[in-house]
Amino acid sequence: MPLALGLDFGTESVRALLVDLRGREHASAVAHYRHGQIIDALPGSKKPLPPHYALQHPQDWLDSAAKATRSALRSAKAGADDVLGIGVDFTSCTMLPALRDGTPLCLVERFAREPLAWPKLWKHHGAQAQTDRINQVARERGEKFLSRYGGTIGLEWFFPKMLETLERAPRVYQAAEVWLEAGDWFVWQLIGGDASALPRSTCQAGYKGMWSADDGYPSEDFLRAVHPKFATVVRDKMPGRLLAPGVSAGGLTPAMAKRLGLREGTPVSAAVIDAHAGVPGAGAAEPGTFVMVLGTSSCHMLNSVEERFVPGVAGIVRDGILPGFAGYETGQAAVGDAFDWLRRLTGQRDLRQLSQDAAALAPGADGVLCLDWLNGCRTPLMDGSLTGAFTGLTLRHTPAHLYRALLEASAFGVRWIVDLLREHGVPVNRFVATGGLPHHNPLVVEVYADVLGAPITVHPSKHGPALGAAILGALAADAFPSPTAAIRAMATAKFAPVIKPKAKHRAAYERLYSDYRKLAAHFSAAPSSPSS
Amino acid sequence: MPLALGLDFGTESVRALLVDLRGREHASAVAHYRHGQIIDALPGSKKPLPPHYALQHPQDWLDSAAKATRSALRSAKAGADDVLGIGVDFTSCTMLPALRDGTPLCLVERFAREPLAWPKLWKHHGAQAQTDRINQVARERGEKFLSRYGGTIGLEWFFPKMLETLERAPRVYQAAEVWLEAGDWFVWQLIGGDASALPRSTCQAGYKGMWSADDGYPSEDFLRAVHPKFATVVRDKMPGRLLAPGVSAGGLTPAMAKRLGLREGTPVSAAVIDAHAGVPGAGAAEPGTFVMVLGTSSCHMLNSVEERFVPGVAGIVRDGILPGFAGYETGQAAVGDAFDWLRRLTGQRDLRQLSQDAAALAPGADGVLCLDWLNGCRTPLMDGSLTGAFTGLTLRHTPAHLYRALLEASAFGVRWIVDLLREHGVPVNRFVATGGLPHHNPLVVEVYADVLGAPITVHPSKHGPALGAAILGALAADAFPSPTAAIRAMATAKFAPVIKPKAKHRAAYERLYSDYRKLAAHFSAAPSSPSS
Repeated sequence: MPLALGLDFGTESVRALLVDLRGREHASAVAHYRHGQIIDALPGSKKPLPPHYALQHPQDWLDSAAKATRSALRSAKAGADDVLGIGVDFTSCTMLPALRDGTPLCLVERFAREPLAWPKLWKHHGAQAQTDRINQVARERGEKFLSRYGGTIGLEWFFPKMLETLERAPRVYQAAEVWLEAGDWFVWQLIGGDASALPRSTCQAGYKGMWSADDGYPSEDFLRAVHPKFATVVRDKMPGRLLAPGVSAGGLTPAMAKRLGLREGTPVSAAVIDAHAGVPGAGAAEPGTFVMVLGTSSCHMLNSVEERFVPGVAGIVRDGILPGFAGYETGQAAVGDAFDWLRRLTGQRDLRQLSQDAAALAPGADGVLCLDWLNGCRTPLMDGSLTGAFTGLTLRHTPAHLYRALLEASAFGVRWIVDLLREHGVPVNRFVATGGLPHHNPLVVEVYADVLGAPITVHPSKHGPALGAAILGALAADAFPSPTAAIRAMATAKFAPVIKPKAKHRAAYERLYSDYRKLAAHFSAAPSSPSS
Repeated sequence: MPLALGLDFGTESVRALLVDLRGREHASAVAHYRHGQIIDALPGSKKPLPPHYALQHPQDWLDSAAKATRSALRSAKAGADDVLGIGVDFTSCTMLPALRDGTPLCLVERFAREPLAWPKLWKHHGAQAQTDRINQVARERGEKFLSRYGGTIGLEWFFPKMLETLERAPRVYQAAEVWLEAGDWFVWQLIGGDASALPRSTCQAGYKGMWSADDGYPSEDFLRAVHPKFATVVRDKMPGRLLAPGVSAGGLTPAMAKRLGLREGTPVSAAVIDAHAGVPGAGAAEPGTFVMVLGTSSCHMLNSVEERFVPGVAGIVRDGILPGFAGYETGQAAVGDAFDWLRRLTGQRDLRQLSQDAAALAPGADGVLCLDWLNGCRTPLMDGSLTGAFTGLTLRHTPAHLYRALLEASAFGVRWIVDLLREHGVPVNRFVATGGLPHHNPLVVEVYADVLGAPITVHPSKHGPALGAAILGALAADAFPSPTAAIRAMATAKFAPVIKPKAKHRAAYERLYSDYRKLAAHFSAAPSSPSS
């Protein structure tokens, strides 16, 4: 039976998922990275890394992928010929400097002790000063690309991370012949070939690399204004081809086929960001489906036929998620993290009692209103310096009141994003919740449905991104005529529970949402009244 | 050795304190009321009382006072002749209906089953509708007395409690020949005499009975507008003489002298409210000393030569605390209560760890700003419907950050009151903290001192109100030429610790106070910028 392989590279481990063309999961295996996150010191060193550093070991990705794939094949009792295509999703922007033959710079003897020669994990936060400068120069010059990112480049993105190395470790920067995303590096390792043709994902490039199909990367003039030595970085150190996820980057090399236990020449899709792989993985076959990936933070993604600039939407990328659509990425910076913060603040062991008590309260938490910006506001204000609040507090309020208010604030944040997209002509027709949170915390989804006034499908896949990657693998193998057909066949959850909104709460939540927007306006420069 | 007796009637018990004229405490004894607070059902009944009811048994006051006084005399090895004067402080507005011979109506057989025939404790909250009406009518008519109470009459005061009985138990109201404060009733019992001369304290009358030396009680026209049958209540049911605390109301009757173990004819001072007795009790001999009685809520009192209307100050009463001065009463509705709420909210067993961690933080609690209106705002906004807030929250904040922010907000609330008094020409020269909180929670006083930018004397007396009452007893016995002389002699704490403000925090707290006022303005109609 033909199977697609999805390789889902997370922060600590990789998952290999084997799924057939009707979406049945045949096997799944996880392999942890030997070095995990490198945060305290480089392997074999005791010298402490600076704070905010988070690195990884590239060898771990290859070793763990091979281990997980072989393990999944064994479980599925599948042979090399059964796998018709491979998809790869990866954390992003996790990136590294390499030589033109693909060797990571950190594996070159004389750079092994240089922290900035190692792959930087997405959460590496060493480039604050560089990010500030890039934003400042871009604003001064009125760079057009800013409008695709809600006006602000992120601290975790590709160019800030390169610039950090240029400024802090110029020798490393100089020695780097190729800078690339880890997902792209991994796909390149699978298919081999010259650096000039290495496969770069339009997803990673569009969402983290300031690239667009129309305008390419930022201009030399802009980069020169940021730093004179940065001017030609795209030409000199970023070779490759831009390919949409689901498009075949090439076939497995003999060496890699042997290593993974697969057939030589098996088509490999261009990479995709892990969260974005959740969109096909959650069965979002049609444009207009708003996929909420709910975890510690949340990432809401939407494919649309329309490509419109929506102020405050952090990423609008043609072919960004699936070929043929404009992909919109929005998000909230603290979701599960915020709930867990409240759990700790109130001295609870878990969220069980809080959830039970909060569920028993009426909308509005007896007057407590929260602003959920505990880690800043991502969409639509793109301002990490904003902070959260609880208002309406009295002596009779309990932890459950604060928890309910926080859930409601999180839901109001989603509604704000949805309203904003619709106001700018981007249709939103359907809601799907996925990620870990909806399963652990069903109350979140209930409150979201009530506040949105719309049903939410809870996608049951426990491995949404891995399934999404497998679908891209099937597409790369030309197993389906279109992404929509592939998703319908492989990721439609027939028995996914649908959480319906309660009509009786509608009026209360309309009023409360308006209060939330007023509170948000007071603590920011946002407009105070919802326009829809 | 000549001693003064202070009888301090609290909510659960009475304390008898024997102190000599140099302020040395010879003995102290506490006797609990047999029936305590009557909240669930009347004595001997199983019929539940309505919610918000809180009653007391008048016999308990006499029995407990006799027991405590005799016990204190025994401890002090003192005889009846040693006690030269008696002072009485009492919770307020705790009030009752009686017959003209002083018999409480609840002790008359046919009224014993009527809850509203019983003394209502200060915290009895059955008169909300009546309070609302009194305020509404007073505002419509532009009653001058409103300006002495910051524009609002309180739910716990004397006239609302009478009107409640008129409307809910007209038979009881009709049978009541005398309505009076419990403190006044007790003093009347001690000295006997006709109802027409019963001693009414200018303190209770001024702070809780809408009385003033210039204008007396509210007019018949006003009372008629509130309720036709209420018009003549002052003339018909409120006989007596108005006397300032410290003025002798009369001498002990033979029967009471025997019961208490004291000498017949011993002078008894007019009563005083328990919190207000804390002013002389805390050694505030000079006008301009701001006495902060810190407990679950706080009451800040000040004697001044100047009598000025200060908008938002809930009580300005000539002779209200000590004869010869204008007494200003201000307060904050949630202090210890708010700290305890945060303790419960954060799942702590006590405040120890929170205090230790909060003390280690810098002013401003790493960005957390609090509005301390968890039980409404007493001074200066007089609005029980206002609510509290925490702002500036991020994922890195802990319970200690919220606790420090709450302490600071409480201190900003004090500073607002002090600024307001000074702006209106009422001098504030010195700060004294008393009550239970400063001893249990020294960090509160430190933060208050830093925010006020002034030293705060922590008065060490554990029984401030009882000492204040004893001073009034000595004054009633003419043992001193003036209140100031009496307080200097009897209540100056030579070794009281003085908490000094830290100069290095001044600039930060100026800025933070301004932020607090802006936050307060956003959540109320208060002016946003401090004018001093």
